[in-house]
Amino acid sequence: MITIISGTNRKDSVTKQLALQYQKILKNHGEDPKIIDLEELPKDFIYSALYEKQGTNPEFNPIRELMKESQKYVFIVPEYNGSFPGILKTFLDALEFPDTLRGKKCAMIGLSAGMQGGVMAMSHLTDIFNYLGMHVLALKPKLTHISSKMKDGEVVDKSDLEFIEVQAKSIIEF
Amino acid sequence: MITIISGTNRKDSVTKQLALQYQKILKNHGEDPKIIDLEELPKDFIYSALYEKQGTNPEFNPIRELMKESQKYVFIVPEYNGSFPGILKTFLDALEFPDTLRGKKCAMIGLSAGMQGGVMAMSHLTDIFNYLGMHVLALKPKLTHISSKMKDGEVVDKSDLEFIEVQAKSIIEF
Amino acid sequence: MITIISGTNRKDSVTKQLALQYQKILKNHGEDPKIIDLEELPKDFIYSALYEKQGTNPEFNPIRELMKESQKYVFIVPEYNGSFPGILKTFLDALEFPDTLRGKKCAMIGLSAGMQGGVMAMSHLTDIFNYLGMHVLALKPKLTHISSKMKDGEVVDKSDLEFIEVQAKSIIEF
Amino acid sequence: MITIISGTNRKDSVTKQLALQYQKILKNHGEDPKIIDLEELPKDFIYSALYEKQGTNPEFNPIRELMKESQKYVFIVPEYNGSFPGILKTFLDALEFPDTLRGKKCAMIGLSAGMQGGVMAMSHLTDIFNYLGMHVLALKPKLTHISSKMKDGEVVDKSDLEFIEVQAKSIIEF
Repeated sequence: MITIISGTNRKDSVTKQLALQYQKILKNHGEDPKIIDLEELPKDFIYSALYEKQGTNPEFNPIRELMKESQKYVFIVPEYNGSFPGILKTFLDALEFPDTLRGKKCAMIGLSAGMQGGVMAMSHLTDIFNYLGMHVLALKPKLTHISSKMKDGEVVDKSDLEFIEVQAKSIIEF
Repeated sequence: MITIISGTNRKDSVTKQLALQYQKILKNHGEDPKIIDLEELPKDFIYSALYEKQGTNPEFNPIRELMKESQKYVFIVPEYNGSFPGILKTFLDALEFPDTLRGKKCAMIGLSAGMQGGVMAMSHLTDIFNYLGMHVLALKPKLTHISSKMKDGEVVDKSDLEFIEVQAKSIIEF
Repeated sequence: MITIISGTNRKDSVTKQLALQYQKILKNHGEDPKIIDLEELPKDFIYSALYEKQGTNPEFNPIRELMKESQKYVFIVPEYNGSFPGILKTFLDALEFPDTLRGKKCAMIGLSAGMQGGVMAMSHLTDIFNYLGMHVLALKPKLTHISSKMKDGEVVDKSDLEFIEVQAKSIIEF
Repeated sequence: MITIISGTNRKDSVTKQLALQYQKILKNHGEDPKIIDLEELPKDFIYSALYEKQGTNPEFNPIRELMKESQKYVFIVPEYNGSFPGILKTFLDALEFPDTLRGKKCAMIGLSAGMQGGVMAMSHLTDIFNYLGMHVLALKPKLTHISSKMKDGEVVDKSDLEFIEVQAKSIIEF
């Protein structure tokens, strides 16, 4: 069971569009992935779902549970300030430790307005996931200059699409 | 003008205690640093202070302004899940870009319950700060097994105290 | 087929001792791993085995070939100056690209005289291996204060031994 | 006193060309930097200048001495296999510890054939230099697709040249 995480709570994000496109691609390969959209986190998430309140937020608990039940993940990671969005790490900080991710497997794909494609974001996340005991697929596509690669809400750049296609197959077999 | 950032919104945190102790030490050297305590972020911070709402939250704006006016920073960084707390990066994502940190200088100190002392957290933060144009002091003390190093709310471990003392002097001169 | 890389060319290194011990442990699990000992690199390696001379050094070519034929690797990584030994990366720079490591799998274990246990070394190596298309096992034991953990040329610390044992089984199944 | 390190021992490298160009630019600002060219390392460097033989190689010792006397450095860092060249780290491993770099300051500039511009190489190096106590200038230009940016042995790309110019001034003042 694969779950896709749309890694920002920014409204109407390109990240969300890419999550939807990735879901389609995985469906074409016979998977039926759900999407966790960080835009749907409770507004008071940082107050009501962390630390001593972990696991007590009824609005967040179903998402937390879905993360725990999933066996594989695809993280869609926009680059914010040279790394991943803070909200994505905050989300990770609210998960049940250590059972949620330990021994699981994930893929990640980066996107950026600029020239880096989330390369540092994905390096940092790999450190975190390995620390938490989750294996990371080596192939991590970097979608640079993302706005120039999309049309009608979907990535259309051929080279990027090929990387995504290869990665989608790889995470299924990983 | 130096500002200290207590890098978590966890209640009654050791991080906050260390921020207060660091403030005292800097005062002993003639500085008068303010503390930004992430525990005081608005509860709906992730909804009301990011992206298209950047700069529109009257509760957060004074903190945002203080960050912009400061010339130097000391970041107190607890290790959460092998890196910095998500809330700390979320806080950075809410600052005015690119003027808040560019050309500024900072120090950071890590603390952890375990054996790493925030080493990866500080490596990731260094990447982010350098990306944003802020210089990072090379000396980054790593306070491991933090609970065994404290008494009555203050670090008492001699070796750790020495590192902090050296760092405090260094950030003043940096 | 698993190959163990002893990640330094320092004479009579603890790294080499650990490589031998790791070989024993893998043999106990039915594997028959060879060891590549960087101490055996040609003395003029940096002159005769890199760049336009890649693949032309008859002394190095058997090692290069063994790396190419192997399917899995265990890297024993001592911490030098806060990262991996330069010689280990130089060794990687001399391998056939991109076929040697792409699609392969590896584990790594860090050791240090001090308190870090090679944590940054292994983070940097993970970046490199993922870039080269090799998957990295999440579990990366960090053997700190290594001299206090060894007796008669073998790690005897119980907790460290347990981590190694778990990792050895994991790389076989990875 | 600034010293420029040409970070590879590859013959006739673009890295060396960039080192020479950087030297000119610093001279235009009144500095008189020397260049350390890793191509000039002794052929048996990995055998004769490391570990118990540190400081005993008469061919290498003048370079080692120059590194120790310098106060500031500019590292020209080509990207090899997603990080810095192994030879550059091996060179660092042969320096006198801890006095060579502690408390010193450096800048670094990355170059690559591909799209990353040495971003990971410079992140890894920053970890190492900070570990060794050397401050790193935040601005780290990333020269991507380097062959398309050069003409007659010099970088001619306007945007890249501007970054280099700003960096050169900054390291003088740092």
